[in-house]
Amino acid sequence: MSLIIDCHGHYTTAPPSHNRWREAQTSAFKTGEAPPPYPTISDAEIYASIEENQLRLSRERGLDVTLFSPRASAMAHHVGDAEVSLAWARANNDLIARVVGLFPDSFAGVCMLPQSPGAGLATSIAELKRCVTELGFVGCNLNPDPGGGHFQSPALTDRFWYPLYETMVALDTPAMIHVSGSCNPALHATGAYYIAADTIAFMQLLEGDLFKDFPSLRFIIPHGGGAVPYHWGRYRGLADMLKRPDIETHLMNNVFFDTCVYHQPGIDLLADVIANKNILFGSEMIGAVRGIDPKTGAFFDDTKRYIDALEISEAERAAIFETNARRVFPRLDTRLKAQGR
Amino acid sequence: MSLIIDCHGHYTTAPPSHNRWREAQTSAFKTGEAPPPYPTISDAEIYASIEENQLRLSRERGLDVTLFSPRASAMAHHVGDAEVSLAWARANNDLIARVVGLFPDSFAGVCMLPQSPGAGLATSIAELKRCVTELGFVGCNLNPDPGGGHFQSPALTDRFWYPLYETMVALDTPAMIHVSGSCNPALHATGAYYIAADTIAFMQLLEGDLFKDFPSLRFIIPHGGGAVPYHWGRYRGLADMLKRPDIETHLMNNVFFDTCVYHQPGIDLLADVIANKNILFGSEMIGAVRGIDPKTGAFFDDTKRYIDALEISEAERAAIFETNARRVFPRLDTRLKAQGR
Repeated sequence: MSLIIDCHGHYTTAPPSHNRWREAQTSAFKTGEAPPPYPTISDAEIYASIEENQLRLSRERGLDVTLFSPRASAMAHHVGDAEVSLAWARANNDLIARVVGLFPDSFAGVCMLPQSPGAGLATSIAELKRCVTELGFVGCNLNPDPGGGHFQSPALTDRFWYPLYETMVALDTPAMIHVSGSCNPALHATGAYYIAADTIAFMQLLEGDLFKDFPSLRFIIPHGGGAVPYHWGRYRGLADMLKRPDIETHLMNNVFFDTCVYHQPGIDLLADVIANKNILFGSEMIGAVRGIDPKTGAFFDDTKRYIDALEISEAERAAIFETNARRVFPRLDTRLKAQGR
Repeated sequence: MSLIIDCHGHYTTAPPSHNRWREAQTSAFKTGEAPPPYPTISDAEIYASIEENQLRLSRERGLDVTLFSPRASAMAHHVGDAEVSLAWARANNDLIARVVGLFPDSFAGVCMLPQSPGAGLATSIAELKRCVTELGFVGCNLNPDPGGGHFQSPALTDRFWYPLYETMVALDTPAMIHVSGSCNPALHATGAYYIAADTIAFMQLLEGDLFKDFPSLRFIIPHGGGAVPYHWGRYRGLADMLKRPDIETHLMNNVFFDTCVYHQPGIDLLADVIANKNILFGSEMIGAVRGIDPKTGAFFDDTKRYIDALEISEAERAAIFETNARRVFPRLDTRLKAQGR
């Protein structure tokens, strides 16, 4: 029986005082004042916020470990400036570290980065180092569009990002490519922006040669890879049209998709089209879609059910549930081994 | 045996002098001069550009009729101003009318609109009326992001678009929602921008109540609906989360997906998840992906093969190939009936 590792969880149930501080911080930014001190949050508050929510559902669904990061839609890198973003990222990452400290068997930390539109990556690099070396985190979330919905950042293959990639490689930590909330009224965050950004990221990688420069760099593209597996023929065909190498060698040693696809036919296609070595179990619960599917009577985001139903070998299922995640996140593997798992 | 109607074809092989005029037109705009007169293009040039390309492939693949519109990536509404866009749209639509005149059994016209970022819709409405009432066109392509890749236009549900919708309803012509070339270096046109825009459009419709105001308005979302069918569970779940009506009643009397999905597993999922009444056969050839799939030995964009391979009834296949298109494009139906088909 393999471990069930959910590679995609966010702290969407953080204590209210944490969120109130964010409101105070951004209000203070607008009026040019200093933000108030970060509140004292008790272990009991954090414990309850997890125990009643993610941990309860994990138990019910049979999940063992969740890679846990700050709420994606609340990263909001487009709000405030680089200093605001740094303080917010540190507060969030410190809170994740406390969750992991309280539930070391159930969570491993993944950090957000203090990105800010137009700003450089020095603080993001420093924060990644701090989270990995001091807090024991195993990866990061990288926002490819910190502007929040107009896609004005350089492509992921641009040399702008290279210093961060060098740090990721040195630390042997992957990144999930994950945008945040949308400040574009035409783009709903979880219904439009997330899925569009996932698709765009993959195409940027297809057009470029990033993994020639960084052969060990690893990205997870969440939400089942956006539209990519559904349009796999288009991407194979475009690679051919654009005289790029075959996608399998060009990208698929470095790019992984999670299983945050909320119905059986989608997961069936994912597992059919994408090599199992490139699929990491994920659910993003408690997240974008929290309801129960009237067609199945189960939660839309209980993605373990869909993987359980796949007609694949147990070795393939174990790859999706456990071994791929341990390979893509070596620091998770080290952590689990230290726990005797 | 049903007619095979391809609802999604662009004149990607227009005569070189047409494209040279566009270059001259945009150069003249930059220098503030008047554009040169539009060139004389012979019937023979148009004939050859079609006969050797779209028509040859249609014959080889067994397609009967193609809904034919100007090259999507060359609409480039973001280039120049509203006047430039109007002249370019008229030149393109007139050229489509000539193709249809030369091959009346094989093509029906779909127009581009002279949209321009920040401009109103008066010229688009006038051009749609001209194309439908004077040139006999059966539909239009509507660009939801004429800015070319930063998604700065109002959502499709915004009242900004209502005068155009009123005209569409009055003329009983649907629109394919189709962006154009990308001026955003981070967004590859056919690999990122198109698929992202399709997905975004659907979510805009899900969030809104457009079809309450326009119960007979009809949109085709191309490229298999972007990411939507693959993430059908997400969209059903988001409708629930956002307290929207069930998607089937809320959207699927008005929204249709084409079959421009370039591999069998994608088409299998589309036909599995989306009701057949909402699927219109399309190939977008000669278009984004022109090569041969080494896995099948057939063209990626020979989508008829994928439909032929579906395990569905012949009545369902006829709906996808013919009857849905005749229902969604009533003016096509009238035209075909006048031809005794």
